[in-house]
Amino acid sequence: MIIVLKNGTPKEEIDRISQDLSDSWGVQPEKSVGQHQVVIGLIGDTATLDPRQLQDTSPWIDQVLRVEKPFKRASREYRHGQASEVVVPTPNGSVHFGEQHPVVLIAGPCSVENEEMIIETAQRVKAAGAKFLRGGAYKPRTSPYAFQGYGESALGLLAAAREATGLGVITEVMDTADIDQVAEVADVLQIGARNMQNFALLKKVGAQEKPVLLKRGMAATIDDWLMAAEYVLAAGNPNVILCERGIRTFERKYARNTLDLSAVPVLRTLTHLPIMIDPSHGTGKAEYVPTMAKAAIAAGTDSLMVEVHPDPAKALSDGPQALRPEQFERLSREITDIDEVVNRQDQPAVALV
Amino acid sequence: MIIVLKNGTPKEEIDRISQDLSDSWGVQPEKSVGQHQVVIGLIGDTATLDPRQLQDTSPWIDQVLRVEKPFKRASREYRHGQASEVVVPTPNGSVHFGEQHPVVLIAGPCSVENEEMIIETAQRVKAAGAKFLRGGAYKPRTSPYAFQGYGESALGLLAAAREATGLGVITEVMDTADIDQVAEVADVLQIGARNMQNFALLKKVGAQEKPVLLKRGMAATIDDWLMAAEYVLAAGNPNVILCERGIRTFERKYARNTLDLSAVPVLRTLTHLPIMIDPSHGTGKAEYVPTMAKAAIAAGTDSLMVEVHPDPAKALSDGPQALRPEQFERLSREITDIDEVVNRQDQPAVALV
Amino acid sequence: MIIVLKNGTPKEEIDRISQDLSDSWGVQPEKSVGQHQVVIGLIGDTATLDPRQLQDTSPWIDQVLRVEKPFKRASREYRHGQASEVVVPTPNGSVHFGEQHPVVLIAGPCSVENEEMIIETAQRVKAAGAKFLRGGAYKPRTSPYAFQGYGESALGLLAAAREATGLGVITEVMDTADIDQVAEVADVLQIGARNMQNFALLKKVGAQEKPVLLKRGMAATIDDWLMAAEYVLAAGNPNVILCERGIRTFERKYARNTLDLSAVPVLRTLTHLPIMIDPSHGTGKAEYVPTMAKAAIAAGTDSLMVEVHPDPAKALSDGPQALRPEQFERLSREITDIDEVVNRQDQPAVALV
Amino acid sequence: MIIVLKNGTPKEEIDRISQDLSDSWGVQPEKSVGQHQVVIGLIGDTATLDPRQLQDTSPWIDQVLRVEKPFKRASREYRHGQASEVVVPTPNGSVHFGEQHPVVLIAGPCSVENEEMIIETAQRVKAAGAKFLRGGAYKPRTSPYAFQGYGESALGLLAAAREATGLGVITEVMDTADIDQVAEVADVLQIGARNMQNFALLKKVGAQEKPVLLKRGMAATIDDWLMAAEYVLAAGNPNVILCERGIRTFERKYARNTLDLSAVPVLRTLTHLPIMIDPSHGTGKAEYVPTMAKAAIAAGTDSLMVEVHPDPAKALSDGPQALRPEQFERLSREITDIDEVVNRQDQPAVALV
Repeated sequence: MIIVLKNGTPKEEIDRISQDLSDSWGVQPEKSVGQHQVVIGLIGDTATLDPRQLQDTSPWIDQVLRVEKPFKRASREYRHGQASEVVVPTPNGSVHFGEQHPVVLIAGPCSVENEEMIIETAQRVKAAGAKFLRGGAYKPRTSPYAFQGYGESALGLLAAAREATGLGVITEVMDTADIDQVAEVADVLQIGARNMQNFALLKKVGAQEKPVLLKRGMAATIDDWLMAAEYVLAAGNPNVILCERGIRTFERKYARNTLDLSAVPVLRTLTHLPIMIDPSHGTGKAEYVPTMAKAAIAAGTDSLMVEVHPDPAKALSDGPQALRPEQFERLSREITDIDEVVNRQDQPAVALV
Repeated sequence: MIIVLKNGTPKEEIDRISQDLSDSWGVQPEKSVGQHQVVIGLIGDTATLDPRQLQDTSPWIDQVLRVEKPFKRASREYRHGQASEVVVPTPNGSVHFGEQHPVVLIAGPCSVENEEMIIETAQRVKAAGAKFLRGGAYKPRTSPYAFQGYGESALGLLAAAREATGLGVITEVMDTADIDQVAEVADVLQIGARNMQNFALLKKVGAQEKPVLLKRGMAATIDDWLMAAEYVLAAGNPNVILCERGIRTFERKYARNTLDLSAVPVLRTLTHLPIMIDPSHGTGKAEYVPTMAKAAIAAGTDSLMVEVHPDPAKALSDGPQALRPEQFERLSREITDIDEVVNRQDQPAVALV
Repeated sequence: MIIVLKNGTPKEEIDRISQDLSDSWGVQPEKSVGQHQVVIGLIGDTATLDPRQLQDTSPWIDQVLRVEKPFKRASREYRHGQASEVVVPTPNGSVHFGEQHPVVLIAGPCSVENEEMIIETAQRVKAAGAKFLRGGAYKPRTSPYAFQGYGESALGLLAAAREATGLGVITEVMDTADIDQVAEVADVLQIGARNMQNFALLKKVGAQEKPVLLKRGMAATIDDWLMAAEYVLAAGNPNVILCERGIRTFERKYARNTLDLSAVPVLRTLTHLPIMIDPSHGTGKAEYVPTMAKAAIAAGTDSLMVEVHPDPAKALSDGPQALRPEQFERLSREITDIDEVVNRQDQPAVALV
Repeated sequence: MIIVLKNGTPKEEIDRISQDLSDSWGVQPEKSVGQHQVVIGLIGDTATLDPRQLQDTSPWIDQVLRVEKPFKRASREYRHGQASEVVVPTPNGSVHFGEQHPVVLIAGPCSVENEEMIIETAQRVKAAGAKFLRGGAYKPRTSPYAFQGYGESALGLLAAAREATGLGVITEVMDTADIDQVAEVADVLQIGARNMQNFALLKKVGAQEKPVLLKRGMAATIDDWLMAAEYVLAAGNPNVILCERGIRTFERKYARNTLDLSAVPVLRTLTHLPIMIDPSHGTGKAEYVPTMAKAAIAAGTDSLMVEVHPDPAKALSDGPQALRPEQFERLSREITDIDEVVNRQDQPAVALV
């Protein structure tokens, strides 16, 4: 962090500020004195400092600027510039999420509705190349009167589908009280967009062992999102996958959210964590999903989550954004072709320095 | 809900759609047949229907339009156009939140730091006219490395301040596991902006008896917010206060959030629930708080929450947006003067019909 | 501007960067050398420098931070902390816009429709206390098929209303080709929100003598807005009034725009220019206008622009946001009462240092 | 447009409303009477009607809903579902923009700086496959103190580069007064994002013959954008290309704008006009440009505009978002590979009905 002092700050005030910084805030101030300006750099653990608050400690302070990133464990530097991988054991073998691995496909319905549909869907998406089945047991719904998911019994059906197909299972946990129960069935615990800053939940999924899929909140900046990941990492769980699923903007008439694909190149430079794109929530409309899925692959995502339902028109939730299995099969083939081309273009297209 | 059919829809398709609506969706379709168009209105419980999904049931459907509001218990119509009031018993007597009552002031620090500061603050804000003490025991912080609140021990200090001053206590609950513990001390349970769509938490605070202060999420539309209130109401708790605290927009350089004061007149027409404004989080800067507090009063808010700290520069969290006690005293006097003028202008300024 | 170098930057690179700064960019670099860090401050005219570009001049540069404000003539410092006033001569005498003067009311229809309606409206709003008549001759409409204003003939009607009542006239200019024509009738030239960054127009209204009312663009940050004002000021016209009229956010269902009243206290600290609030466009709905007008007054605006139409249901444009004359009369009385109270609270409520 | 009446509306009021609709608004009302509801459909030219205004004509009106699209000439239906193509003659031959044609590349510097740089850049981008040279003569800059472009003399340099390479020229026009001059040199006239709703400019470029490149405004909805195109089309110019260049959202720290790639599939269903993507402005950072360019190709854009500068670090404007020529060459090859794969996947991936 850097404190810029106003022109003409008296020497005594500079000293007082420096003293106060080390006494009250536990950081080591380092003065840089120039002809017209004095800048105080802060050495030490500045992650907990609030620039706005330091600003108020003296009327001679012009500005306080955070020059270091607020996240540590999530930062690319923490891994010396290397990407990390999240390895998830499934009955069919370990699946690797990460920059150096082929794109991982996750597919399945919004909600688990009954045994037949979830097993049929699992078989279809497996045949099309998916490594994971997604499916909601506990559903976050805007309306309390909308279908809330079948809860515990849906978890049983997911377990059955896992056994029948060998696919890994990804499902959402919404309440700290349900973590153990969900973690018994799920291979990856999903934190939904609405809970991205549910810090109680983040701490507790950080304290258990299953990998965590962290969806970006609708109004979360990239920094907010990485700080939410930092909660999980700081609690001891190193396996976090970041999933972009659309942000909320002024344009909501045609696509429900604005899928921010630039998150892919931005995250690549900031963090070592693997990246997932969810074009189903990102657009809210099945018609746009294949196009945006292909764009996500070309942008270099590490994994892709797509909603698939055997009969979208009869789905208990989010049917309008689900593909039919045969649509997913076709998309999977098309994605593979694009992925191959992009991967052959193996070195970074722009090495700027 | 209204289904608009395309020009030229065959009669058999109209009949098939109507049959499907009553068979699959449990609503009673009512055809309105004109010369060039057919419109199907849906009678019955349409709150759980998703317009996007109905759209997909026939290629002859041009549009599906929700004409009724998605919320029921929160709606003004539910109370036949009358405002409700939330009455909170405190040691100093019952406090009434509502359109027909004087503005209620809530003040106190972001976090409870120690006994001396919380009791001193409570005494100062009480003397200035506040009816409630606010203070965080569990704090939602963007960074896992920032001060997270003193938790249970802070609850004890809030209880002591309540006893010492007779003020009611409002404090945040972040985890379903903490509800009972927090409800033992708090007179009103606060659900923070980041948890506005933490539906597990909403259901559980709806199932207990303490009134609930529901802050608006940073990206929550008015409808989203009222639907979150609906979760609490539907779970059996009729005492919900809605608090606007700033939304996230493209402008974040000077004020941290954009305080949406138009929420006051908008909510008045939509809901019977009492309204609160929080200009401290709404602007993030103490300098702007008095101005926006006065604007909130002129806009007709039912209550006002302001952060006050005996020494903002040394606060453990959010010091930069806290007023000093003497600033709050002055603000309280100014607010009272404006409130009196506004209340004398007692009838609605515009009766449009 | 401040350049923060990476830890360990070689001395030769520091010298090279410094040399390049003065050679290529015409600024005087000033090194501040500390034990672990080197910071280069730039002295001179940095307003034209792009921080992103300086960043790219060396891989050893960690960050480039603009610490000074990008605007000069619009800044409060430019007037040594004092507010400026814009004095507009009208047939009824000079009207003063500014912090030290009573609130100025501007009222009138969205569009000038015919002589009778514009003169009647002018008389009614004058009687209610307005000093200026607003009315569109050239109208920016989203649709090319919507009424575009009566243009030149409407200007004639505005002139007639001005003569009949002595009110000043404010009307919008949309095309550089129309400036002279509009300036013949208007006492103040309005630049609409959609043209806030029409720099050709800004330069040309800056080169003529009539005062300029500059509406904030729907996606304009405060800095963007002040830089647009700077265009007018830099071109030689010192008389600019800033008008907040709602910004575009994710919430557009009930109020058309989000009226950002915090712009008032924010602008007060940044600029000397007078401030206007337009709650009619700010909300898009007559029902919300009086409430937000009163809030604007309590927030300390210098002037208020309100749409008034003798028969809103028959208005050729924006009828739904117009007040009827009797509603405006009532609002004017209520505003006056609030303004008096706020003005008696004459010193700043918070002097933070 | 559809008017939904409240339950229990008296027959006389229904008749009065119907009469008023045809008398005052010139549309033919068509009643659809059901058992519990009455809906009035409006036949005729409803494009000029404002739903909010009709709403105010009777207290018995529950809602007024626009069911038809506000644009006509820009709509896909206007061309019976077929894409249109914009054919631009250039010295090297006609270039076709449209769904059925290969991706068109446009490249060049933000600003034209001198003869050598513009001709060198033109030669390099031509060699890499570009069909058009972009380059600013008149530059919209946030600051009046920033470089504003060399204007007329830069137009002369563009003409020289056109002659030297045979590339078509695309350059921005900002002032109605400059249209003729710019149109003498430019093969395509660019309307910048800040002028997307400069309706005076739209009308005048619609009244001349050169094709128009219409950039999306930073806060423009898809509907706003298509209505802006409608201005050009309605004025008689059928050749409009739509360019997405990033919208303004709450996230502005890493990428300057949020590139909304879902605009591609959304526009495909709404309009017949050709689509362009500009990842340079869309991200504001050269580092992210290749990734987003590839994603745009995978999403199916018809053309791509990329900023290229021989020495970005010395560019007079927007250097940080410009690629060097060799980076553009590489990108061009990579894009071609992806484009081929996507085009082989020739039928729509999802035929939803």
